[in-house]
This record gives sequence, structure tokens and C-alpha cells, in this order.
Amino acid sequence: MNRRMVLYVVGKVVMVEAGLMLLPLVTALIYGEAVAVSIGVSIAIALLSGFLLTKIFKPGLKTIYAKEGFVITALSWLALSAVGALPFFLSREIPSYIDAFFETVSGFTTTGASILTDVESMSKGLLMWRSFTHWVGGMGVLVFVMAIIPSLSDRSIHILRAEVPGPVVGKLVPKIRQTTRILYVIYIVLTLAETVFLLFGGMNLFEALVHAFGTAGTGGFSSRALSIGAYNPYIQWVVGIFMLAFGVNFNLYYLILLKKIKSVLKSSELWVYVSIVAVSVILIGINIAPFYDSLSETLRQAFFQVSSIITTTGYATADFNLWPNFSKLILLLLMFIGGCAGSTAGGIKVARVVMLYKIIKTELQRLLHPRSVKVSRFEGKSLDSSTLTSVNSYLAVYTMLFCAFVFIIGFNGFDIETTVSAVSACFNNIGPAFGIAGPAGSYADFSAFSKIVLSMSMLFGRLEIYPIILTLSASTWAKK
Amino acid sequence: MNRRMVLYVVGKVVMVEAGLMLLPLVTALIYGEAVAVSIGVSIAIALLSGFLLTKIFKPGLKTIYAKEGFVITALSWLALSAVGALPFFLSREIPSYIDAFFETVSGFTTTGASILTDVESMSKGLLMWRSFTHWVGGMGVLVFVMAIIPSLSDRSIHILRAEVPGPVVGKLVPKIRQTTRILYVIYIVLTLAETVFLLFGGMNLFEALVHAFGTAGTGGFSSRALSIGAYNPYIQWVVGIFMLAFGVNFNLYYLILLKKIKSVLKSSELWVYVSIVAVSVILIGINIAPFYDSLSETLRQAFFQVSSIITTTGYATADFNLWPNFSKLILLLLMFIGGCAGSTAGGIKVARVVMLYKIIKTELQRLLHPRSVKVSRFEGKSLDSSTLTSVNSYLAVYTMLFCAFVFIIGFNGFDIETTVSAVSACFNNIGPAFGIAGPAGSYADFSAFSKIVLSMSMLFGRLEIYPIILTLSASTWAKK
Repeated sequence: MNRRMVLYVVGKVVMVEAGLMLLPLVTALIYGEAVAVSIGVSIAIALLSGFLLTKIFKPGLKTIYAKEGFVITALSWLALSAVGALPFFLSREIPSYIDAFFETVSGFTTTGASILTDVESMSKGLLMWRSFTHWVGGMGVLVFVMAIIPSLSDRSIHILRAEVPGPVVGKLVPKIRQTTRILYVIYIVLTLAETVFLLFGGMNLFEALVHAFGTAGTGGFSSRALSIGAYNPYIQWVVGIFMLAFGVNFNLYYLILLKKIKSVLKSSELWVYVSIVAVSVILIGINIAPFYDSLSETLRQAFFQVSSIITTTGYATADFNLWPNFSKLILLLLMFIGGCAGSTAGGIKVARVVMLYKIIKTELQRLLHPRSVKVSRFEGKSLDSSTLTSVNSYLAVYTMLFCAFVFIIGFNGFDIETTVSAVSACFNNIGPAFGIAGPAGSYADFSAFSKIVLSMSMLFGRLEIYPIILTLSASTWAKK
Repeated sequence: MNRRMVLYVVGKVVMVEAGLMLLPLVTALIYGEAVAVSIGVSIAIALLSGFLLTKIFKPGLKTIYAKEGFVITALSWLALSAVGALPFFLSREIPSYIDAFFETVSGFTTTGASILTDVESMSKGLLMWRSFTHWVGGMGVLVFVMAIIPSLSDRSIHILRAEVPGPVVGKLVPKIRQTTRILYVIYIVLTLAETVFLLFGGMNLFEALVHAFGTAGTGGFSSRALSIGAYNPYIQWVVGIFMLAFGVNFNLYYLILLKKIKSVLKSSELWVYVSIVAVSVILIGINIAPFYDSLSETLRQAFFQVSSIITTTGYATADFNLWPNFSKLILLLLMFIGGCAGSTAGGIKVARVVMLYKIIKTELQRLLHPRSVKVSRFEGKSLDSSTLTSVNSYLAVYTMLFCAFVFIIGFNGFDIETTVSAVSACFNNIGPAFGIAGPAGSYADFSAFSKIVLSMSMLFGRLEIYPIILTLSASTWAKK
């Protein structure tokens, strides 16, 4: 493996992170907060360590292959989180480094799980940084890096594959850098649109940015203890609808820009996604109706929570922990499905669920007619056997890892509902779970060891498992 | 499809069931119970309906293919359960037919889930029938039928494939009828051995048979409310060890008969199975030690429950619902693993879990070296791609169905722990779950609709999903 190149890129990434920290620094300065010092020191540390890494490991050979791509991705996310935790830790606003690391991983992976028990006592500067990590993590830091560092772009498809969620990495245009730029423009425009809508609803610029970042990355960090529940119905509808929008495959927005509306409407993943949301809202609406005064409030609560959970955002307008068991169960199932491929949402992804369904149909056909050759189709294209195998294998790896995490977190001795839903909420990058870690609770009571394991499960979920496993495996690092 | 042949075989199966009911009839007569009348009437109904089916649908063409094999299997199990429920219903010992059907499906599928709240008030005749269904269901009723009806045996591999659990149907000897006979002899000898051991422990013949049948089929119905907890430690050890033995691939016993001990010791599935049991016993033992007086009692309780759950038997010597969460979590994970392929145990099966692990390893290899061709090996044989696909697809179907069942049972409004573990306990053919349906509770409180759905989930689990889906699909029944 080209180790020098791997560490060189990680160094570059950390230097870019220093630049990203300017936003919280400016926020802290505007509000005249002392935390500006801690953020400033963190920037200096990031710059220095990034500088050293790029100097020491300046690579002779710049070629990278699949293996390097995966390892670069995994290590970059680890480095980003380790450095990104510094402002929280140095300012003592989060006194334990493990807690700060958990919070930062949760931010970059767009999970939104929090160890904070009193979010409103935090400084504005750090709240901005916390939500900004969602926004940065949502589209993939490395895609961003790729777009700005020309020297890396020749082999960067390997990084894109490792980092962009979902089974389908569609190249919109032949050049990979152009593709990432188009996606970023869509991402930025949607974020700005939401910010404007939120400003109209009475939020100040700070609140509007914090929540637009949290929505765009499908993250879920808020500056308020009551999350979006602290705001008026108009704002709840805006956030609910934008969460759903960020859970759609971004390729479809590009098609809209090209005025190919017909192709958009032909996307089976979109239809399945919308149908799942509609059915869930209706079922939960009927189930929770007795708890709310009006039809419009019932609908809003059901829609917001469904939208928040299926897109793995994790904002809340109600403590769904107190809802009837049936509604909780539906939300638990939605946690696993997740948003569309090629969106910022986590989970298994609607596209994979649809493909699994097709695999099942084909397998049944095969049992009945062993010699028939039937080809499954998805989004108009036939699914070749290697796509099917990789979707299948992903489910297998996913299931095994899920069980392993449940087993490890089980050592905390919390009830089964808390344990299973906490693992599910972290692994699927959702955030709030049921029981102790519900929307009104936090992850503060888990042991330090569990917090590290849950942090890893968030990274596994965000990077779709393989990059981390490959980085952890000894054979990857062996010299040939 | 050859519909006449399908219904003809179902008729034969029902007539065989009439013969099987002689055992409970004799039991009732020996104990002088009035229930003998209800059993007698049930036998008459079974004989008559079986006779009519075989007369009306006497087939011209006796050929059956894969499709007929699956449909015969699914319909036979449904017919067996529908008729087998009659003695419970006619005697009014179970006043609701749906409850009686649930109990009988639970028996034949070797699940052991019960709607009875006071098992000790039941007549001896029906308790014998209830446990005997475990024994009959354990090895597969149809395999039994095949062994005794010569006219079916030419194409019967299709039935065997559909009915014998596990991904590997090993033909021990070239002739399929000989294979089934050898397996039956092993099954009978092991059952007799356990019966003798239990008689030595102070059980009377009735109790010894009831519990030997329940162990052999990995079913779990007992004649006592406290299950095996009502008996002395010696009996608890005997049952615990025999449960484990019935969870081993029966092919290995045949190899022992042939004195091929080396091949037995080379079975990787056996080693994984034993290791999982050992690790689970140690972890649970440490976790529950404070609750018990002595090391030997702790060890016995841990071993018995682990053995009972991993083999999906469901006998209990302790109310594990009251154990610490960590131990409950391990038991929940064991529910999914299940016993070895080619045993009477349910669950996903150890062999499949091992294969899934190998698939994951291969997939990682493929990611690193896209052009390398690496072949996974299991039990000394290389796994071809169609085996891998079918193992993978099985997991996919399994997961989807599991979620669908959880969704449907969720309408009952029970807590998540009860709902998820009840589905898991029925689908994996275990029996007792956590919460309301725990070892000290029963399934009595579920709605009638849920009981039907849970009955179906038991059949799905026992027949490994595909036969039922194929029978339910319209295209199977379409005329060409």
C-alpha cells in the first residue's frame, strides 16, 4: 500500500478542517464568547499537525488504488473527528475527551446522537461548530477535498465510491470533479433555501443556519433542548419537508435541472420512498390521534417524526418515547430502511431494500424453474450478478455487525429496548433512540467503552462498513 | 401443476396422522380419561377425510417436480395441524379452535409456544398428543410418510429438500429411502436412550416419554407448569445434554456409526456450535452467579437455558425473563443462530452463519482485489456461487419476513421487547419469548389474528420459508 500517500492526504484533510473551523470562530467572536480562544488553539493544532503530515509524508508516487481509497476515507474521518473534538474538550464545555470525540463523530457522521444533557448552556460558537460538522459530513468531507485539491482528482473515484452512501454511485457527467461540483451546488442551494424559509418563520440567522445544517446533513443536532419542538408549526413543517427532500437521491435534482421530469417520475426508488412515508404517516397518525387536539397537529407530529426517522435525521417535535408501542415499532422499522441511495441519509437505503425484494423474487423463480434464466431489473437497468451479490453481502455484513454491536453494548446492562435501539440509532446514523437514549434523554449514561464502540458503529454506518473493516485488517497494512 | 397428485398425497398424510393418534388414545384409555372419546372421533374424521381425498383425487400421473414438492409439503403441514387440533377442540380442553390450531402448529413445527395458562389441568391423553406432535414434526412428517409409502419414493427428493431443515441435504447413501431410514433409526435410538435416562431419574413412563419427545423434536412442550424446573438436577442435566445432542447434524451420528470419528472431528459447524455454547454458558454464568447459591447450580442454569435456546427447544429450568439484561440479550442472539443444519433445531442454523461469515470475507477480498478469483470453502468443499447466492437470499427473505411479522404483531400494542421476541420465538421455532410471552407466561393474550399470523410464522420457520410462499403465490396454481 502507498502509505505515504495515505498519510499525506490525511494531512491535507486536517488542514482543510482548520479552515472549516473559521465559521465557529467567527460566530464566537460575533457573540463575544471566550470559547473563541479554544477554537483558535484548535485551528492552530490542526494547521500544525496537517502541515507536519504533508511535509513528512510527501509522496513520491501519487497513484492510489481501491485499497488506498478505503484507508484514506476511514483514516480521514477518524482524524477529522479526533481534531474536531478539540474545541469541545479544550473549552471544558465537554470535560471528557471521549465524550467530545463521541459528539464530534456523531456530528460528522450526521448521526446526531448526543451526550449533552443541557444543550442550551453551550456557547453559540460550539453549537455552530457542532451543527456545521453535520453539514460538512453530509456530502462527504473528502468529496469536498477532492473538489478543491486538483492533484488528487485523477484517481479519486476510489474515494468517492468509499464515501458516498448508497449502492449506486452514478456519474452524472464523465468528469468526476464536475459531478462532485454539481452535487455540491445542489446541496448548497437547498441549504440556502431552507435557511431563508426558516428566517421567514422567525428564527434568527444563528438558529436558521444551525438547523439548516442539521437538516441538510440529515444530522439532527439542535441548539434547543426541545429540538424543533421549541419552534412554531410553520417551522416544523419547513424542517419536516426539507428533511424529506435531503433524503432523496441527489441525481434526481440534477435531472430536474436538466428538465428531465419524466425520468424523475420513473424512479422506482422515489416512489417506494414516498409510499413508505405516506403509509407510515397514516398508520402512526391513526395510532396517536387520541394524544393530540386537532387533525392538523396529529398529521404534523406524525409526518415530522416519520420524515426525521426515515431520513435518519433525528430532529424531534415530540417525545416519541411516550407514543404507543405500535408507533414506536414502525419508527424502529423505518430506522433500518433509511433514505434513498445517493442522498445524505443513512440506513440500509430504499434502493437496497427494493433490490433485496427483487432478489427474493428471482430466488423463488429459480426454485420453481431451476433452469430458467431470469434477470432482475431496477431503475430500468438489469441487475447483474455482481451487483446482486454485493447487495446481498452488504445485508449479511450489516446483520452480523449489528448483532456484534448489540452484544458489546449489552455489557452496559440496559434493557433490551434501549440497547437494541441505541445500536440501531448509531449504526444507522439516526441519533435519538428509545428508552434511556430517547429524544428527551441522552447517551451520557453509557460507559466510556460503550461510547467508543458506538462512535465506531456510527463510522461503520456512515462509510458503509467496508472502509473501516479494511483499515482495521492487518493484511491491508502488510508490505508486499 | 399436478393438482390431483398434491391432494392425493395430502390425503395419505392425513390418514397416517389418524394412525399417529393411536398413541394418545391408548394413553387416555390407560388413565381412564373421557378424552378418549374426542380422540376417537378425531381419528374417525381424519380417516374419513383422508380416504375421501385419496379416492377423489386418485392421480393418473404420479410424477412430481420441485413445485409439487413444495406445495405438498406446505399443504400437508397445514392439513396435519388443522386435523391435529381437533382432539383439543372437540374435548373443549382448548375451547377456541384458533387456540387449538396455534397449539398444534406449535407442536408440529417443534416451536413449543403455548396458549395454555394451566397445563397441569389438561388430560394425560392430550398432553401425550401435544408432545408427540413435537416428535413427529421433528424429523419431518413427510420423510416418515415417504419411508412407508413405496409409490412416492421415486421423486421424493423434492419433498426431502423442501422439508428437512438446513442448507445442506446430504445424501448419506445413494438411495433416498435408505437415507431417511438411517436418520429415523438414529432419531428413535436417541429418543429411547433419553427415555431410559429419564426413567432412571425418577420420572414415570408418561413423563419420560412426554419430555423425551419434546427434547427429540427440539419442541419444548412439558406436562408441568414449571417445565423441567419441576424436576431434580440430574434430570435437568440429562435433558440439557440431550437437547444439545439433538441440535447436532444427524449426518455426524451416521459417521460415528461408520466409525469415521476423524470426519466428525473435522466438522467446522460442530466446532463453531460447541464454541458458541461454551462462550455463552461462561458469559451468562458470570452474569447470573449472584442469583444462585452454588457454582454447580449457576452452571446448570446457564447451560440448560443456553442449550434450550440455541437448539430452539424452549424448555426452561428458570424464568430467564427475570435474569439481568445482558443474559437476556445473549439468549435473544442465540435465538437467531439456532442449531446445526440437518438437525431438528430451528433458527438460521450455524452452517448458514459460518457461510455468511465466509461470504463477508470473500466480499472484502473482492473489494481489495477486484480481479482475483477466490473460492470460499466450507466443510472441505468449495462453495459454488449458487450455494452462496441461496444462503444470501435466505438471509434477505428471512430479514424481510421477520420485519413484516413484527409490523403485523405490533398491532397488538404490546411493548417492543414482547413483540420482537415473540416473533423471534415463533419464527425460529423456539417457544417461550420475553415479556408477556416469557417462560412463566403464555401466548394466550395475543389477539386471534395475531395467533393466526404467529402460527404462519412458525410454519414459515419450520419449512424454511419458500414452500409456504410458493403455495401462497397465485402463479403456482395457474394452469399452463
